[in-house]
Amino acid sequence: MHWSKLFIPTLRETPAEAEVVSHQLLLRAGYIRQLSSGIYSYLFLAQRSLLKITKIVRDEMDAIGGQEMLLPMLNPAELWQESGRWDIMGDDMFRLKDRFKRDFCLGMTHEEGMTAIARGEVRSYKQLPQIWYQIQTKFRDEPRPKSGLLRLRQFIMKDSYSFDLDAQGLDVSYDKHYGAYCKIFDRCGLKYSSVEAHSGAMGGSQSHEFMVASEAGEDFIVQCAHCGYAANLEKAASVAVPPSQPDPEGDFTPERFHTPGRKTITEVAEFTSLPETSQMKSLVMVADGKPVLAMLRGDHSLSETKFGSVTGAKEIRTANPDEIREWFGAEAGSLGPVGVKNMRVIADEALQGRKNMIAGANQTDYHLRNVTPGKDYQPEYFDLRQVASGDACLKCGSPVALVKAMEIGHIFKLGYRYSEAMGLKVLNETGEEITVIMGSYGIGVERILSSAIELYHDKDGMALPAAIAPFGVVITPVNFSDATLRKAAEEIYAECLKAGIDALIDDRDERPGVKFKDADLIGIPWRVTVGKKLAQGKVEIVDRRAKVTVEVPVVEAAAYIQQRL
Amino acid sequence: MHWSKLFIPTLRETPAEAEVVSHQLLLRAGYIRQLSSGIYSYLFLAQRSLLKITKIVRDEMDAIGGQEMLLPMLNPAELWQESGRWDIMGDDMFRLKDRFKRDFCLGMTHEEGMTAIARGEVRSYKQLPQIWYQIQTKFRDEPRPKSGLLRLRQFIMKDSYSFDLDAQGLDVSYDKHYGAYCKIFDRCGLKYSSVEAHSGAMGGSQSHEFMVASEAGEDFIVQCAHCGYAANLEKAASVAVPPSQPDPEGDFTPERFHTPGRKTITEVAEFTSLPETSQMKSLVMVADGKPVLAMLRGDHSLSETKFGSVTGAKEIRTANPDEIREWFGAEAGSLGPVGVKNMRVIADEALQGRKNMIAGANQTDYHLRNVTPGKDYQPEYFDLRQVASGDACLKCGSPVALVKAMEIGHIFKLGYRYSEAMGLKVLNETGEEITVIMGSYGIGVERILSSAIELYHDKDGMALPAAIAPFGVVITPVNFSDATLRKAAEEIYAECLKAGIDALIDDRDERPGVKFKDADLIGIPWRVTVGKKLAQGKVEIVDRRAKVTVEVPVVEAAAYIQQRL
Repeated sequence: MHWSKLFIPTLRETPAEAEVVSHQLLLRAGYIRQLSSGIYSYLFLAQRSLLKITKIVRDEMDAIGGQEMLLPMLNPAELWQESGRWDIMGDDMFRLKDRFKRDFCLGMTHEEGMTAIARGEVRSYKQLPQIWYQIQTKFRDEPRPKSGLLRLRQFIMKDSYSFDLDAQGLDVSYDKHYGAYCKIFDRCGLKYSSVEAHSGAMGGSQSHEFMVASEAGEDFIVQCAHCGYAANLEKAASVAVPPSQPDPEGDFTPERFHTPGRKTITEVAEFTSLPETSQMKSLVMVADGKPVLAMLRGDHSLSETKFGSVTGAKEIRTANPDEIREWFGAEAGSLGPVGVKNMRVIADEALQGRKNMIAGANQTDYHLRNVTPGKDYQPEYFDLRQVASGDACLKCGSPVALVKAMEIGHIFKLGYRYSEAMGLKVLNETGEEITVIMGSYGIGVERILSSAIELYHDKDGMALPAAIAPFGVVITPVNFSDATLRKAAEEIYAECLKAGIDALIDDRDERPGVKFKDADLIGIPWRVTVGKKLAQGKVEIVDRRAKVTVEVPVVEAAAYIQQRL
Repeated sequence: MHWSKLFIPTLRETPAEAEVVSHQLLLRAGYIRQLSSGIYSYLFLAQRSLLKITKIVRDEMDAIGGQEMLLPMLNPAELWQESGRWDIMGDDMFRLKDRFKRDFCLGMTHEEGMTAIARGEVRSYKQLPQIWYQIQTKFRDEPRPKSGLLRLRQFIMKDSYSFDLDAQGLDVSYDKHYGAYCKIFDRCGLKYSSVEAHSGAMGGSQSHEFMVASEAGEDFIVQCAHCGYAANLEKAASVAVPPSQPDPEGDFTPERFHTPGRKTITEVAEFTSLPETSQMKSLVMVADGKPVLAMLRGDHSLSETKFGSVTGAKEIRTANPDEIREWFGAEAGSLGPVGVKNMRVIADEALQGRKNMIAGANQTDYHLRNVTPGKDYQPEYFDLRQVASGDACLKCGSPVALVKAMEIGHIFKLGYRYSEAMGLKVLNETGEEITVIMGSYGIGVERILSSAIELYHDKDGMALPAAIAPFGVVITPVNFSDATLRKAAEEIYAECLKAGIDALIDDRDERPGVKFKDADLIGIPWRVTVGKKLAQGKVEIVDRRAKVTVEVPVVEAAAYIQQRL
């Protein structure tokens, strides 16, 4: 294509509203424009890149036997009421009424829609397994859309759904997806990790997220550089760093002492001259309306997700001051487990075997020393703790690191959540009715583009992987009004097209500096500069990412690019 | 692909809810399933066909320099308020509020969105022309969705928009689209006509519709078999059939006579023994609140679209009985033009030069004879009449025909409607600010599939054009459990794939009859039957549409198909 005919509105300045690099560059390079908060128009370059991404996704989904479909975005309320998600989704769901005042929503995912199709038509084990997918726009009314294409209210997802007769079948479908996802992200040129993810309270049994490490991310993953263990923060487990001071030996009884104005773990640690690892943290949570006391080591944080799985509660919150006063007779900051009745008490495993620690006395401005779990109170032990940087890897003992990351894909063993709610059953070999087991799998299409930009950019702009760059090469005559340069450039351009290379020719009447800057900004992986070297029958070929220039004979230029793409 | 692994839920029975053939067959052949009124899930076969269609559309749009984009479906109200369409669209537009109670709608088309992008970034004549397009889901809250994929509430459109400096530029963009549309519909294998269409009250200057003649259609087109003239009914003009009886000669004065209970043209014609062509029809219309009397020859019908263009009114309706009594002092059925004051009187050109006709007397149960337009009342003459079958072609005089048809594409010179309302201006060569002139162009993607089915089907199912059929060929071993047949079938299948043919192998453990029936139903253009002829090294190749079978040596089967696709 000829640049002069295209609409590529590059900007000189970094737009003030854009915080993360991918957002800045997508705006500056003329890929996208905002229409409303979290809602963007994808201009020519973005759409070109997204089409390349979706082609890769489609190829790999087809390769595992996925059957592409396209389900409606407008969904009648009844469909989501069947699964119970009409209520659960709350304000995150865009809802509307049609002209006859019937309730509809805009699809956030399509577990319901797919299950409804299968329910009507899949009746025998012989029809299983099935993998159905679509590449389609989804809607989510994010309260705080941000970071350009990273948290959108309207976005493109590849979502797929597997239907199997039994758990072994689901394992196969799951593994196929795992493999396809790796191929997709590899082909898109991303550096990513797959991490174990929490399968949530929905009855799912296994889940992996595919994450790209990036400061622009909103998630954390835990990684062990030594053995390769990786999990998202919600799911990750580790061996806590040992207490920085051993517990006092001896069989002491809890003993109250005055801690005026000392409420936080840090304050009490300072006051008692005992480290945070010698303190116990008491958190009063409310799980589905019932109080639960969660005990952790002073330097540890509660993982709400783990707490959620342990309690199985749908609604979790911290108790408010009034509730705390009513239940404990003391203010937050002086709470502890000793003497607590009428309430479930759970403790993180890191407290198991500890003794003679500090805890609140359930009397404002008082604490207890010599509190020993298992003796002075009887908790149930669970892994409740969020992993911290420097903890020992559960698998190999090396220290793990916490890394900011963005999710690009998620695979999930749904189990019977939807098939049971919606009555999706088949007859098995012996004629019994069997509920179908399902998996659900997603890829954020725009996220592939955004994360590629986050991974590969420099001060001059994007340095996109060739597979997803809007063009493979740009041919840049330094002066298009020079007939010799123009002719040579057009010839190389024609050669590239003939070789099947997705080429662009910068035929604009602009200074070479402007052309180079624009090409660097929009991230085309290769540039062929047709300039004064032409007199010697040569052109310069620039590798955008490596910023390395080589001289190549004109006649070999297209072949050189073709080899490298 | 192997049929046994696919989800192709064919039905034996024709679903009762489906009226038109394409709807029946799309359901029976397992292409689509309804989710809600006018909202369908596109299953594997439909999506495969739609992907082929969109690829053709994309190819040809790219070939005319179209730049693909993707604009949001969620549109903020402000955008549509700028053009005034927020109010105009009424109940046809799906509207919703986000979590912050801000108004949004679901995009019906994207004139506003595209103009908003251009307005921000296209500033110089040097950046023109531009053609921007997208292939995207649109929403329209149809009051009466029906006919399967023919009138949907959610549907896929290719919509494009051209931006030019002047009318000559728009002519070029328009002609490019005209050419691209012809190529698209040709490649999709459709038989279609392009007809002149009414450009509406929006200030557009030229418009063509691309129509497929079909009993399932909801539009009418007027066609002249002799000279090729074609126009949609709203736009079409013709020479009316001459009156069946000449007007009485002489310079008579209108004369009242009693016509008890005779209200319709037919009744008065019978009563007076004068043909309907000797009667005048008086229609009282209300255009933007004001009464207008429209006069037509007794056997003619008013075209509301032509009436709308003549009056320039936004709201048009027929007057109600109370209004008629108030304005005329008589009941409908006895109305006429003589003596009418305080009201615009317009007449169809077919009344020009007529004399001594019958009209209502504006007194209930009375008519006038000897009414001569231009003498007894002074109308303005316009083309107001809907063309009727048998009228003479304006261009060649041959009789025209009225044909039912469905619209598959529409191209439209928008003019300044949106650029003016939204302030899209560029600087021209001399530095003046010039409002950009626009065109708007649409293709209904599902309609291509539906109309292909309407055109090409027989009692056994669809007979789709190869370019848009979900598969090019199906290889059908008559007995898949026979190892010899299976091996031969798999070999031909592999050969087909190697030759780039989109092949399906029917590896199901079904009787040959079931396999043949299903293949015919889903409309695969070629079938290779691997059966008892294999002993002689041959297979049967069946042309689905022609129902012709030839015997071909096994080794030539793939090449035979490849040549024909």
